[in-house]
Amino acid sequence: MKRLPVQSSRMTYPVVVGADVLAQTGEQLQEIGIKTGTKIAIITDTTVAHLPFVNQLTESLESAGYPFQTLVVPAGDASKSLDVAYGLYQDLISFGMRRQDVVLALGGGVVGDLAGFVAATYLRGVPFIQAPTTLLSHDSSIGGKVGINLPQGKNLIGAFYPPRAVLYDLNTLSYLPERQWVNGMAEVIKHGIIADANLFETLAANPLTVCPPADELEPILTAAMRVKIDVVEGDEREANLRQVLNLGHTIGHAIEQRSNYSLGHGEAISIGMALEARLAEKRGLLTAAHRTLITSVLAAHGLPTQAPADDWHEIKKLIEVDKKHKSDAWTFVLPTAIGQVQIVNDIRPQEVEDVVRESMKGV
Amino acid sequence: MKRLPVQSSRMTYPVVVGADVLAQTGEQLQEIGIKTGTKIAIITDTTVAHLPFVNQLTESLESAGYPFQTLVVPAGDASKSLDVAYGLYQDLISFGMRRQDVVLALGGGVVGDLAGFVAATYLRGVPFIQAPTTLLSHDSSIGGKVGINLPQGKNLIGAFYPPRAVLYDLNTLSYLPERQWVNGMAEVIKHGIIADANLFETLAANPLTVCPPADELEPILTAAMRVKIDVVEGDEREANLRQVLNLGHTIGHAIEQRSNYSLGHGEAISIGMALEARLAEKRGLLTAAHRTLITSVLAAHGLPTQAPADDWHEIKKLIEVDKKHKSDAWTFVLPTAIGQVQIVNDIRPQEVEDVVRESMKGV
Ligand SMILES: NC(=O)c1ccc[n+]([C@@H]2O[C@H](COP(=O)([O-])OP(=O)(O)OC[C@H]3O[C@@H](n4cnc5c(N)ncnc54)[C@H](O)[C@@H]3O)[C@@H](O)[C@H]2O)c1
Ligand SMILES: NC(=O)c1ccc[n+]([C@@H]2O[C@H](COP(=O)([O-])OP(=O)(O)OC[C@H]3O[C@@H](n4cnc5c(N)ncnc54)[C@H](O)[C@@H]3O)[C@@H](O)[C@H]2O)c1
Ligand SMILES: [Zn+2]
Ligand SMILES: [Zn+2]
Repeated sequence: MKRLPVQSSRMTYPVVVGADVLAQTGEQLQEIGIKTGTKIAIITDTTVAHLPFVNQLTESLESAGYPFQTLVVPAGDASKSLDVAYGLYQDLISFGMRRQDVVLALGGGVVGDLAGFVAATYLRGVPFIQAPTTLLSHDSSIGGKVGINLPQGKNLIGAFYPPRAVLYDLNTLSYLPERQWVNGMAEVIKHGIIADANLFETLAANPLTVCPPADELEPILTAAMRVKIDVVEGDEREANLRQVLNLGHTIGHAIEQRSNYSLGHGEAISIGMALEARLAEKRGLLTAAHRTLITSVLAAHGLPTQAPADDWHEIKKLIEVDKKHKSDAWTFVLPTAIGQVQIVNDIRPQEVEDVVRESMKGV
Repeated sequence: MKRLPVQSSRMTYPVVVGADVLAQTGEQLQEIGIKTGTKIAIITDTTVAHLPFVNQLTESLESAGYPFQTLVVPAGDASKSLDVAYGLYQDLISFGMRRQDVVLALGGGVVGDLAGFVAATYLRGVPFIQAPTTLLSHDSSIGGKVGINLPQGKNLIGAFYPPRAVLYDLNTLSYLPERQWVNGMAEVIKHGIIADANLFETLAANPLTVCPPADELEPILTAAMRVKIDVVEGDEREANLRQVLNLGHTIGHAIEQRSNYSLGHGEAISIGMALEARLAEKRGLLTAAHRTLITSVLAAHGLPTQAPADDWHEIKKLIEVDKKHKSDAWTFVLPTAIGQVQIVNDIRPQEVEDVVRESMKGV
């Protein structure tokens, strides 16, 4: 079990990563100064609520003397809505939650984002604990971004609200469906490419196509989380510093939308990273050998690296929305080596078109 | 025109108080670094939208080169709801508001609290400007508390979200209905009793029963705001330090609720201050002369100082809800002199009962 400190604008909080973390929830709460008797509202979803590790959490709370209540929302991104948040506010009031009581998110990024938003706004903010249970949430549980969707788009409403602690029990990940696992690996690999060549090489030598035992996974996820922590530490709101985390996301997000979300987020950004590596190579920023390595490590994890056949102009429109205006110079995060990226702000749409078209043709 | 700096946890922002502030909105925005071309969403209510000073604001924005849109919500506390917030999110999206664009609240505490909540949560927070237009909002526009109501109670949802600036045009106050004015004066007097004997004496010598010209009002409201600023500066979340602002509110809030809000908030806390002064006198903390002075200054402003005939046990129940538990030792903020208060945490319910019963009987 590892304990990584994260410095946020208001305080430092621990990220606890390892096996059997949930069984120690009570002790972990005590460690960060949450008094016995404090009410804990566990927010989770309909899938997670039935998984066996829930009992480890609740038994630990019980024996440590924390009264709790479990609030369950439907699994899926549609729960990140004001309606569902409204229902949770009602539940918190019925539970008699006061200013010092705690909201604990048990689940993936959906539960974390939703419960975090509710915690940030209920009584102007109550203590918030993240207990992530997906591979993707090694990413989403760090950085303090919480929020919900509007019909017009994802994450349009939200706040910066760092948790008091992240309790990441790696045993929970053994229950993930294969495709969830694979999609999550795309962000782990991304963290390697951005800033940790060692992490990347470990994955290259030994691709994680299924969830390994917790002790094997711990150093890998610790490394991946450390990359994210280093980027977001200090001022969570600093969008410029955070840009590097968008590796693969500019092209990837457009492809994800064009697929009508039949591609998973990780699958789409895998394609995005492969194409952005190609863009970097053409610019002479990345060697062909490194580009090939990136693509092959993604592929070795069962991730796609080729753009599905599509209409370039539609993809271009989506990138323009993402960039927030039409322009002849787009900003991209490009890999320049394994473990190193650069922000390039004069990418011409034609350059992107070239790599997208080539990829579609399977060149 | 005065410019008071307020230190909040994230930045320092100016409170600009005086005549014709709204006519200089454009310059004020420039002063705090908001670039020409930034979109301004003005949120106001149906009453304020028809008052003549709105044009001064919009003309100033126009000539300074800020595109704007005016979003109008129904006047009244019922607009502090998630439903109305949802409608505003939709409007902000239609207006094409982005992360650096500004929400400007033009109105009283209702508009300030609602627009502030929307600004705090739209795109995880956009810059927020307060342009208060009621006397009460000399109080509500400072301190960073924003929020909305739930059916179960007021201000249950919210955030701490300090504005980038408070632009307080005192000319706007000349349009206030008399009762609004009188109610607002209760909080001005409160600020004097808490920490500014000078302010209190000015009001004693020359009660403000109607809105005076801006140049006469400026030093008074500047002084009142400075009291609030001194209390909230530094850490906005520090509930302990803020306690002194509750002078008159413990008893007052119970009486306000018992009146079914037929008493205005200022009227209720005026009664609360008179009764809490009596409590302080009985404890030997306040001289009889000072207690009489407090009561007579409130009365000279047209404010009630006697509790309406009612059932003590019902009032007691409401105080218990406010104190969040039954206890034989309540905490009260009590005046110990003009310009000085003390937090007393061993008040027995019997002591409160005595002063409430006496006041009801007109003793
Ligand atoms: N806040 C941030 O910084 C940030 C960053 C990236 C993504 N996100 C958000 O995260 C969300 C996606 O996260 P996600 O992929 O974790 O989605 P998710 O929370 O919907 O989880 C995916 C599915 O897996 C199920 N599940 C969760 N834990 C499980 C387990 N241990 N075993 C079996 N099934 C389990 C869930 O019930 C759900 O059906 C999106 O809403 C995205 O916007 C947020
Ligand atoms: N955030 C805080 O720290 C804080 C502190 C105290 C009170 N509050 C909140 O403030 C609200 C009460 O504020 P309020 O009394 O300003 O209420 P308000 O905003 O409802 O204004 C009162 C009425 O006056 C009208 N009005 C506003 N400006 C006017 C003008 N210049 N001329 C004529 N009419 C005008 C409004 O349309 C409204 O009908 C409550 O919701 C309360 O919870 C917040
Ligand atoms: Zn991502
Ligand atoms: Zn008040």
